[in-house]
Amino acid sequence: MDRIYFDNAATTPLLPEVRKAMIEVMDLHYGNPSSIHYFGRNARSIIEENRKLIASHLNCSPSCIIFTSGGTEASNLILSTAIQNHGVQHIITSQIEHPCILNSLKEYTKKGISIDYINVDENHCYDVMHLDELLKKQSKKTMVCLMHVNNEIGSINDLLTIANLSSKYNSLYFADTTQSIGFIPLNTQLCPIDFCIGSAHKFHGPKGVGFAYLKKPSETHPIIYGGGQERGLRSGTENLIGIAGMGAALDYMSKHSDQISQKLVDLNHLFRSQLNLLKVQPEWINKKENSISKILTLRFPNFRNSDLLVLNLDIHGIAVSGGSACSSGAEKSSHVMEYIFPDTNGKIVRFSFSFLNTKDEVENSISVLQKILQ
Amino acid sequence: MDRIYFDNAATTPLLPEVRKAMIEVMDLHYGNPSSIHYFGRNARSIIEENRKLIASHLNCSPSCIIFTSGGTEASNLILSTAIQNHGVQHIITSQIEHPCILNSLKEYTKKGISIDYINVDENHCYDVMHLDELLKKQSKKTMVCLMHVNNEIGSINDLLTIANLSSKYNSLYFADTTQSIGFIPLNTQLCPIDFCIGSAHKFHGPKGVGFAYLKKPSETHPIIYGGGQERGLRSGTENLIGIAGMGAALDYMSKHSDQISQKLVDLNHLFRSQLNLLKVQPEWINKKENSISKILTLRFPNFRNSDLLVLNLDIHGIAVSGGSACSSGAEKSSHVMEYIFPDTNGKIVRFSFSFLNTKDEVENSISVLQKILQ
Repeated sequence: MDRIYFDNAATTPLLPEVRKAMIEVMDLHYGNPSSIHYFGRNARSIIEENRKLIASHLNCSPSCIIFTSGGTEASNLILSTAIQNHGVQHIITSQIEHPCILNSLKEYTKKGISIDYINVDENHCYDVMHLDELLKKQSKKTMVCLMHVNNEIGSINDLLTIANLSSKYNSLYFADTTQSIGFIPLNTQLCPIDFCIGSAHKFHGPKGVGFAYLKKPSETHPIIYGGGQERGLRSGTENLIGIAGMGAALDYMSKHSDQISQKLVDLNHLFRSQLNLLKVQPEWINKKENSISKILTLRFPNFRNSDLLVLNLDIHGIAVSGGSACSSGAEKSSHVMEYIFPDTNGKIVRFSFSFLNTKDEVENSISVLQKILQ
Repeated sequence: MDRIYFDNAATTPLLPEVRKAMIEVMDLHYGNPSSIHYFGRNARSIIEENRKLIASHLNCSPSCIIFTSGGTEASNLILSTAIQNHGVQHIITSQIEHPCILNSLKEYTKKGISIDYINVDENHCYDVMHLDELLKKQSKKTMVCLMHVNNEIGSINDLLTIANLSSKYNSLYFADTTQSIGFIPLNTQLCPIDFCIGSAHKFHGPKGVGFAYLKKPSETHPIIYGGGQERGLRSGTENLIGIAGMGAALDYMSKHSDQISQKLVDLNHLFRSQLNLLKVQPEWINKKENSISKILTLRFPNFRNSDLLVLNLDIHGIAVSGGSACSSGAEKSSHVMEYIFPDTNGKIVRFSFSFLNTKDEVENSISVLQKILQ
């Protein structure tokens, strides 16, 4: 069976260019980056080259980039830093954040951190007027902690407005950019964010590697202690193969961004237009105007729950998601969808594309949907 | 120049079998292990197969193995667990532990954890009589935190005696097994340790992946929160390629352990015997009787410091270490050597072998040493 992978917001296949970069490191560069000899220096130079590459993508100093085991660790590192080093006692976030934010914050509320949740508007974006009100009321050192692009509903938020508002009220801003890095350019010199994160496997790099951007890296509170790697901010021998893969992936995404964007727009349009062929129309589609093209979220009224449709599609070789890829192997119903559409009862399915998908795949999946929905 | 890599205690080259396993995952298994569709289930099965493989190596339940980004994170997770979940308030450790233990403990002393340092005997092993005394005196919940094999001096400690002593006094035992996993079998059913760790790149797997063994995994205190991977004990999308590589590496090491051990003994013997050819004899060699064959530590009196010799050997294409591979790019003088040999002034060099090294490499390196020492 020719399988179709439409779950690219959960994770993406490796690019051939990434594979090549990783195998090169596997074969040639096995030194420990902390060793002073030839093998060590070689390994070190790979890390620093990739740090520079990622920094140039964000237009920041390489020293602002800390390599981690992924977006989740990066997010934990940033929360620890904000609270321990910057004295943050209050967080403004939303109910539609990723579990790595919401579950970490749950731990911090036990330690006395207070939380406000910002409203989400009819476009599934953050209500910036509400943010303004909340920031105006703050009495304790505050950090705003909001996504750039939502991983489930695909809404693109106005990073610059949020950053400027946070800055105006002397609050910190941690932008969860997991879904946008590699897809939407981010210039930290123009957009005054304090923190952001990246996870390689969301942009065709390997799983298990990511980075944190910290505007003031010297004020970082480590969560992992040890040999003092990453200038003492994140100990542990560096994931050399993964870092090389992440750099190669971001480099590719960056150099081909126009073609990639166009391809995603085309796939999205084709899918939307083909939906008209279905006898039973999906009831709801995420907003076209302010959604990222790679994410398309649909509600199929005649399915008891999304898992059933996800499994049915899977039987026909099509991989989609009924929630975000989460912990348990059986997907939980999505906290994001329950918040935005309290009456959907988990009937929502997310199709997420990559530029590696083809128009044939879109057309074939519509045929399969026709069959299943009959 | 044909380079010779004798720094295998810092990190090891990938085995062809590991490379193959990693590339297979890169090419075929790109799903998110938490997704319920075909791609996700495939990825999940790779993780669980490798968990079983590692568990069988330690003769424990797969649920006792938590995947991490390496030995350092695993060690941090165990310390957090011992202190937060098991109520440990006192640690017995030594001055010759790895920085990932000593630096983490430094943080915990700030939070009121008290520490005793056990003596090291003339064989560079832990003084178990002293351990008995310290355990006898304990008034607070205690954890013993001692290495199996020392990474710098190569001494093999008596894990079973330490584990039994800890158990006798109702203390926990965290065995730092970073240098021994893959080289010395460990049966957790016979040796009552509570925790141990592994780091793939020390046994010919990739950097950036490791594991923690926890006898009672349900009593784990996470240090990274998020999507709830690893049964909520370690969030973050799993390093699938790395985990496959680690499993393949441990599998190889385990299946070929007799040949590997013999090869390392042979290389060690050859190196020792060839040292007699040198005009200027190294003053000191680590104890033959209770050292692991892969580590050979020498003191060259006519060098001002070990860095100079390390760099000199490097110029001739031979990679060795003057300390443990540490954080800074410029090796610090070793805290282990300073403790054991307070008068050495950093003149100690570590040669560490792998079974991939050859007898020719040993002979060639002796010739180079002859040249340099003249």
